[in-house]
This record gives sequence, structure tokens and C-alpha cells, in this order.
Amino acid sequence: MQPYTFTPVAYARTAYPQNFGIPRQPGLVPSSWAKIEFCPGFNADCVRGLEDFEWVWVQFVFHDALSEGWNPLVRPPRLGGKEKRGVFATRSPHRPNGLGLSLLKLEKISFDPLTLWLSGADLLDHTPILDIKPYLPFVEAHPEARSGFVEGAPPLKKVLWLPEASLQAKQLEISDAVLVQMEQSLAQDPRPAFHADPERRYRMRLAGYEIVFYVDVADTVKIEAISHI
Amino acid sequence: MQPYTFTPVAYARTAYPQNFGIPRQPGLVPSSWAKIEFCPGFNADCVRGLEDFEWVWVQFVFHDALSEGWNPLVRPPRLGGKEKRGVFATRSPHRPNGLGLSLLKLEKISFDPLTLWLSGADLLDHTPILDIKPYLPFVEAHPEARSGFVEGAPPLKKVLWLPEASLQAKQLEISDAVLVQMEQSLAQDPRPAFHADPERRYRMRLAGYEIVFYVDVADTVKIEAISHI
Repeated sequence: MQPYTFTPVAYARTAYPQNFGIPRQPGLVPSSWAKIEFCPGFNADCVRGLEDFEWVWVQFVFHDALSEGWNPLVRPPRLGGKEKRGVFATRSPHRPNGLGLSLLKLEKISFDPLTLWLSGADLLDHTPILDIKPYLPFVEAHPEARSGFVEGAPPLKKVLWLPEASLQAKQLEISDAVLVQMEQSLAQDPRPAFHADPERRYRMRLAGYEIVFYVDVADTVKIEAISHI
Repeated sequence: MQPYTFTPVAYARTAYPQNFGIPRQPGLVPSSWAKIEFCPGFNADCVRGLEDFEWVWVQFVFHDALSEGWNPLVRPPRLGGKEKRGVFATRSPHRPNGLGLSLLKLEKISFDPLTLWLSGADLLDHTPILDIKPYLPFVEAHPEARSGFVEGAPPLKKVLWLPEASLQAKQLEISDAVLVQMEQSLAQDPRPAFHADPERRYRMRLAGYEIVFYVDVADTVKIEAISHI
């Protein structure tokens, strides 16, 4: 079994400095942008014609999960963290080879340095990118495919700013784009599948801010506080 | 730019011992099977629940193309080999990191050794497999996506066995499954995009046989001879 070595062609910048809060699949949080900045040596020629494609495949390294290893069996959050599935039957970041695959929407290409602007990102900030490929609907779109336990997008939670947090957000002059991304990220319910204590406070970091929230008995995500990191 | 090293988790066995004749995308030749045999250390647990998915992503290494390097610009066969596109705007096997991505249909899983049986394969025999992931239609099926120069499946050519070749095939007692895969592979027109000489003979190897064919002025693929390799 000969090993293969790959060097990143680019790195992703996103609003997520830690795993907690990252959308669990691409496209679930449309406002989640990613800026993929190519390394020196990759010029405009390398992406000529890519603008004709609406979606692109991003093949990346789950760099933050590599050191944690992997297990043959995984508890997918979509199954409530109770049932187990084989690692190759899930999209878990803890895999024998820590390779990720995300289909993101190509919004714009800019140059000097060569940068792809994408939306729907489920990537950690500074993710190493190994490859970019165009999406080919005639081979890759199978809307009717059987897909086991992953039937569709998970249900969204209602998100509410408590008065104190709302005031803090105003004082911090947070842009609407960031507020929307915060709300869409929280609506996904970033909590781990196991959460015994309904009153527990969680902290999510996004775009340089830290949010404190909890989920009340009526299943509403309540933002209690927001501050600069 | 820290490099990352990956060790294959499995190897693919297919009917294609060389690049010439391999379908240019997955799914184009439904009869093209692949048998993905996992390496020791991967047990049945690793794929538990995978059988609930109809399609799986195969992330692999273009191992045969690695030594040939890559260029920023590529001439996709779909553009007649005349126009250039950036390497990241194509699915060319000659890429900065020789990573391939194919969506294949999962037909069966067998054990001892752990093996996935897939169809629609566009893989070279002995391809190193780095990862297997389930296909998630709710995020990955976008039938209406804009897709540049790749509008749909390429047109199929008519394939004809000339009498001599037909007789040879009978004498060799080639199975119907192999004959179908040969015909479907040739219907894709495996010739390079540049083919100035219409009378030129080509040799395609598949499932232990070598086929000699040409494409006549009416654009029919004519099989002239078939023999054991």
C-alpha cells in the first residue's frame, strides 16, 4: 500500500474559527461564504472557464480532525447520536484518510491573488484545499437516489435574540450579513446530538464574535449574549 | 504549505488495464463494473449502513497519470481537443494533486475480503482508493445547474462487429457481459480528440482481450479483430 502525498493548492478562509457551529453539510447555510485563496504558482489560466459552472467540488483535508483518529463505527448526528453507522456510510470528518468533499456555489472569481468566492460553505477557517473540480449535473445529479438515513435537510430551529444580546449586537455594529450567517448557523442547531441538560449554555464563534445561546423547552434557540472574541 | 500523506484504503479492480477505452465520466458505460477490495484492517463495521445508499463517491488517485505532471491549461475531449480550459475547470486526470472523484452505483457489498461491487466505473484497473462516502441527494443533486461546456452525455456511436471479429468472439467464447461492456465502451468513441487519419486502426484492451477497431466515414465504430492479450 504505497502512500501518496498531496500539497494544498489553496486554503479556505471562512467565518468559522472552530468546528462548533459549522453547518453539517454544504448548502445548509446559504449565507456561509468561503474565500478560497490559491497558493503562489497557480495563475488565472488554471481556472479559465470555471466561471461557466454554477457549482464546484472542493476536495479538502479535515485538518483539525486528523490528530483525533477514526473509528470504524460513527454515531451520525442525524440519527440523534444514538445509532451507529460505518465510517464509510457517513460524511464524518474522522475518516481513515481525512478527506472532505463539499459542493459549493461559485459566486465570483477574483485575481491577484487568485481567489474563488463560494457560498454554502461548511468549512473550518484555514482548511487546506487539495483540488477544485467543476460539477457535472449529467453524471452527478440524482435527485431520486436512495439515501439511507439522510432523507433531506434537517428541520430548522427558530432563533431569537434576547433583548440584552440584541442591544449588544447593535452596539457592536455587526453587519447584516454576519447577523444572517449567525442566525442561519444557529437555526441548524449546532449542539452535539447528546444534550441532556436543557438549560446548558453553548458558545459559538463566528466572524470574530462569540455568541452565548441555549435552546429552550419549546426548542427555540435563544441568543443571550454576543461579544468580540 | 504542509503536505498531507494518504494511504489507500482499497484498490479497484476493473476491466480496463490501460487508459485507452476507459469511459470519460462515471455512469456513461453502465456495464462497466468495479470491484473495490478493501485493504486488511477494514472490516464489515466500516461500511455498516452503506447498503442503504444507491450511489457512493469514490475518491481515488489517478496513479497512472501522476508521473506525467500537469499543465494549467487542458484541452477537454468534449471541446474536440481544440479549445483550452483551466485544469480546475475540467475533470482531467492530469491535475496538481492527482485526485479523482467518481460517483458510482453501489450494486452489492460482500465480505471476506470486504468488497464493494459498483457499476458505471470509469476507473483504471488497480486504482488506489482513498475514501468512500455516501451520496447525499439533498445537497448534491442539482439537475438544473449551469455546467459550461459539459451539457450532457456525449452522443453514442454505432458499433458493428465485422464478420471476422464476430467469428473470433464466438470462438473465444466471450461472455455476453464482456461483449456488452466492449460495445458500450466503443460507443463512447475512445479515440483521442485529434484523429486526422480516418482509416487509422486503434487497439483497446478490456477484460483480458484486445480489440482492433476503426471508425468509418459514416462514423460507425467497426470491430475488425479480437484476441486474447
